[in-house]
Amino acid sequence: MRNISKDTVNRDTTLCMSLSGRPSNIGTRFHNYLYEELDLDFLYKAFTTTDLPAAVAGIRALGIRGCGVSMPFKEACIAHVDVMHPSASAIDSVNTIVNEDGVLHAYNTDFQAVATLLREHAVDPACTAAVAGSGGMAKAVVAALHDTGLSDVAVIARNEATGRALAARYGFHWRSALGDLRPHVLVNATPVGMASGPGADDSPFGDEAVNAAALVFDVVAMPSETPLIRAARAAGKSVVTGADVIALQAAEQFVLYTGVTPSADQIRRASEYSRS
Amino acid sequence: MRNISKDTVNRDTTLCMSLSGRPSNIGTRFHNYLYEELDLDFLYKAFTTTDLPAAVAGIRALGIRGCGVSMPFKEACIAHVDVMHPSASAIDSVNTIVNEDGVLHAYNTDFQAVATLLREHAVDPACTAAVAGSGGMAKAVVAALHDTGLSDVAVIARNEATGRALAARYGFHWRSALGDLRPHVLVNATPVGMASGPGADDSPFGDEAVNAAALVFDVVAMPSETPLIRAARAAGKSVVTGADVIALQAAEQFVLYTGVTPSADQIRRASEYSRS
Repeated sequence: MRNISKDTVNRDTTLCMSLSGRPSNIGTRFHNYLYEELDLDFLYKAFTTTDLPAAVAGIRALGIRGCGVSMPFKEACIAHVDVMHPSASAIDSVNTIVNEDGVLHAYNTDFQAVATLLREHAVDPACTAAVAGSGGMAKAVVAALHDTGLSDVAVIARNEATGRALAARYGFHWRSALGDLRPHVLVNATPVGMASGPGADDSPFGDEAVNAAALVFDVVAMPSETPLIRAARAAGKSVVTGADVIALQAAEQFVLYTGVTPSADQIRRASEYSRS
Repeated sequence: MRNISKDTVNRDTTLCMSLSGRPSNIGTRFHNYLYEELDLDFLYKAFTTTDLPAAVAGIRALGIRGCGVSMPFKEACIAHVDVMHPSASAIDSVNTIVNEDGVLHAYNTDFQAVATLLREHAVDPACTAAVAGSGGMAKAVVAALHDTGLSDVAVIARNEATGRALAARYGFHWRSALGDLRPHVLVNATPVGMASGPGADDSPFGDEAVNAAALVFDVVAMPSETPLIRAARAAGKSVVTGADVIALQAAEQFVLYTGVTPSADQIRRASEYSRS
């Protein structure tokens, strides 16, 4: 049991928050853990809203320092922030707002985190990749693969319009299914494998593709041990899980909000706590 | 040292807040003390703003349950709430906003608290009274005296326009100074006696008036032992202090926000904690 001292919740305590359609507790627990660990007079709380423009204006007017943005607000909030930084403008998607004295700066730390994880796993420009999905996280992943220098990337999406549009943006190609492709890097950026979702027990990629891959990457964080990740681990592949993405993007948010950089060990413990 | 469990700050935690030009910690400490005492999953935090309309719209959009309103926002926020309840509309002054599913209800618990304290001290319609001041708290006090049935009330104010207007509203009379009046009830509703103010060592009423009075009432809460209250205690008079007002009005806010009525002992302890 970890505690916030009531004496530290005062007029000077800095509030950070999140906005999402269905708030989870992960961000709240991650950030509050590190505020206490690092003795920062901050407090984090998750919110939802039915009036996004007023909610964002409220962040500005109340001096709320930062806001994590999740589905379905990542694109809609663009019209209400003041400065779009490259990580957000590159993919027309915001997951982080930082309030600098009433000026709202927008970033996308998912994009930054995915790019960092690809680099850490030594994904190089000669690799081939397939990304399942064409939503917000798929945009972050495809942009990060492009930034990493890959030129042969397949966007696998049932929605042909959004799939083709996302692929075309970077000179990649669209497919409705993986078919006989056997890329080095497999990325799931769909909700398949998410607990309580309709595809909780499914994997977007078959065993043959997993066996042929070098790296398997899943953005699903709850649970992070999805059927895809379990199959990849069983086949001895390198894996990146949704827990890795969420921890790293949250850590980058934390730095933006507080100016303080936690250690790798602190991030690991905060991530474990946030999911416990 | 009292603690909020970090495990209780989660997506379901209900946020209440305050808006004032210069936030104090009293409300934050009072409400958080009682949330913990009564095991309520609520959290309270003080804010200021330079954009009141956006701040109030943000309360609505973020589902913030309640907001205490202090100077200089008590009148300006009227245009931004949805329902004015009699305690607020009677004096054109709001100190409490309650968010009922996106509909903002406005109250004035200062008015309610002053009326309750007059009743508890057996002030009856035959009493005479003088009120120093013509600002927001003076409006609450004068309206409460009128509600109590008093007909002979002097409004003592250097600002003749606001003083005359406030007095005329209830058929009372205005004076620039107390002069030879010796009313039963003396009320200070000015900042005189407030710590760090220009009149910190002053009293709005002289010893003769205090000695002739039955009840001396001061709205100044920091400190609550003002020169006026000290003189009244020395003369053996009944007193009502600003600490009494602030505790009772905060307790009424607490009931509006939570639906839970604390005991008198809990309110007393929360009040002591809030000022410690």
